[in-house]
Amino acid sequence: MSRIVYVNGKFVPEEEARVSVFDRGFMFADGVYEVSSVLRGKLIENEGHMTRLRRSLSELSMQSPGTDDEIEAIQNRLITLNKLDEGLVYLQVTRGAADRDFIYPGENVKPTLVLFTQAKNVIDNPIAETGITVKTVADIRWARRDIKTVGLLAPCMAKMEAKAAGFSDAWMVEDGYVTEGSSNNAYIVTKEGTIVTRQVGNAILNGITRRAVLALAEKHNYKVEERLFTVEECYDAAEAFVTSATMFVQGVVKIDGAKLGDGKPGKITQQLRELYIEMALAEVS
Amino acid sequence: MSRIVYVNGKFVPEEEARVSVFDRGFMFADGVYEVSSVLRGKLIENEGHMTRLRRSLSELSMQSPGTDDEIEAIQNRLITLNKLDEGLVYLQVTRGAADRDFIYPGENVKPTLVLFTQAKNVIDNPIAETGITVKTVADIRWARRDIKTVGLLAPCMAKMEAKAAGFSDAWMVEDGYVTEGSSNNAYIVTKEGTIVTRQVGNAILNGITRRAVLALAEKHNYKVEERLFTVEECYDAAEAFVTSATMFVQGVVKIDGAKLGDGKPGKITQQLRELYIEMALAEVS
Repeated sequence: MSRIVYVNGKFVPEEEARVSVFDRGFMFADGVYEVSSVLRGKLIENEGHMTRLRRSLSELSMQSPGTDDEIEAIQNRLITLNKLDEGLVYLQVTRGAADRDFIYPGENVKPTLVLFTQAKNVIDNPIAETGITVKTVADIRWARRDIKTVGLLAPCMAKMEAKAAGFSDAWMVEDGYVTEGSSNNAYIVTKEGTIVTRQVGNAILNGITRRAVLALAEKHNYKVEERLFTVEECYDAAEAFVTSATMFVQGVVKIDGAKLGDGKPGKITQQLRELYIEMALAEVS
Repeated sequence: MSRIVYVNGKFVPEEEARVSVFDRGFMFADGVYEVSSVLRGKLIENEGHMTRLRRSLSELSMQSPGTDDEIEAIQNRLITLNKLDEGLVYLQVTRGAADRDFIYPGENVKPTLVLFTQAKNVIDNPIAETGITVKTVADIRWARRDIKTVGLLAPCMAKMEAKAAGFSDAWMVEDGYVTEGSSNNAYIVTKEGTIVTRQVGNAILNGITRRAVLALAEKHNYKVEERLFTVEECYDAAEAFVTSATMFVQGVVKIDGAKLGDGKPGKITQQLRELYIEMALAEVS
């Protein structure tokens, strides 16, 4: 399986997809990314991802590698070249290659743009039936988690810590409150049926799927609270779930030692997953 | 000027020095580094850097790319190939290239090893005469600054913020206490002549030059206190300075609006710089 990968203007086999060792993405984690889901060969909610990409670039005073239309043309070309039906397109922009210096290089140094695809069963994901288990771990990340940078070592460590303890994923906790999952937003459903997730701000990523799912929940008359929630509230929850561009909505059936409900994804979780899939399929049909 | 750069077993012109876009250093900041100073074509305190590299690798459960002797042979070969008399050798190890996944790849994925040189006047650095100015900024980094990872965007942002305000560098501040500079350890000298620098721990990098300079200070009967110190203490200090592998000891003459002493590097700072240079020159002669 050799994919075709996009690197700075060229479509090349993945074995030849390389960047300079002086790329600031490699030496300083000076880069941002987006992951867009693909269903039936089409991008899902890509406008939201492009808008967030613009914000990340702006927050870091990073040059844009092209217009939204230019980037979307590359995404779609990769989907075609790799015959991608279902999965994701990953996109990364870095500040480009320059001799190593903490000071940003001048405008003459052009940003690096890399895109590639990954095939994945997004809808018929067996995990949707069983749900995932999560371990709470300390959130040791930096203070600007609202910027989607490639500085992802801490969430990798969090996920490894969870895996080592026999869990599927980690929920990160700061000052007693859950921030988010290693690569997804985190939610609980209280015994009263209220959907609770942390409010957006610098402490979490403003999820594209999060926004859509909360809008769907409110449209279907669920009570939604965007606020801090504690680990203890998690243990006492009726349901829990996560959202991300490639997981859509996935039930959480266990948090640390606490089994939720009957040990399967809850009803509200399942309904939200169905509503989101319905919306996504409508977008690509 | 085309340097010869080392990448995974090969010595290549810098234009050809590339890594896979799937390298975890590029996609996850899943890599560590060391910078060793070079004087008269020889490495300074390299054993300390190798020891710290081992610790960084160990803390991240990352495979080693080779023995200390093997790495030092590469460093020395690069010094020869690039005819480096004075400057630095940069070394970076990442967890290697694998399809994107927060979970670490298996042992079959070998670490990436990259090294390159930079020429620089380390001893006859004009900044040693004038000193640098520093602006205090919020320390927004992650909680494991003791691991020397390539997740350096926050210190880059700190240095850019300082530069934009007309300062040479930033000192990062957390809960009112100085942690360290953007790429150096930070010190003040009180009006009583006591050298104060933050104690090692997760909040700062355990500097190789820091350790040597503190040992030299104690040997020459200076009082040294390794403890938290506030921004207010900085403003009230008699002297201030920074240390790093490539700056050695550099005086700080202004912190935010506060000019220190007579606006030139202080006497104790100058003596420590001379003592360190003397020690370094002894190592290479």
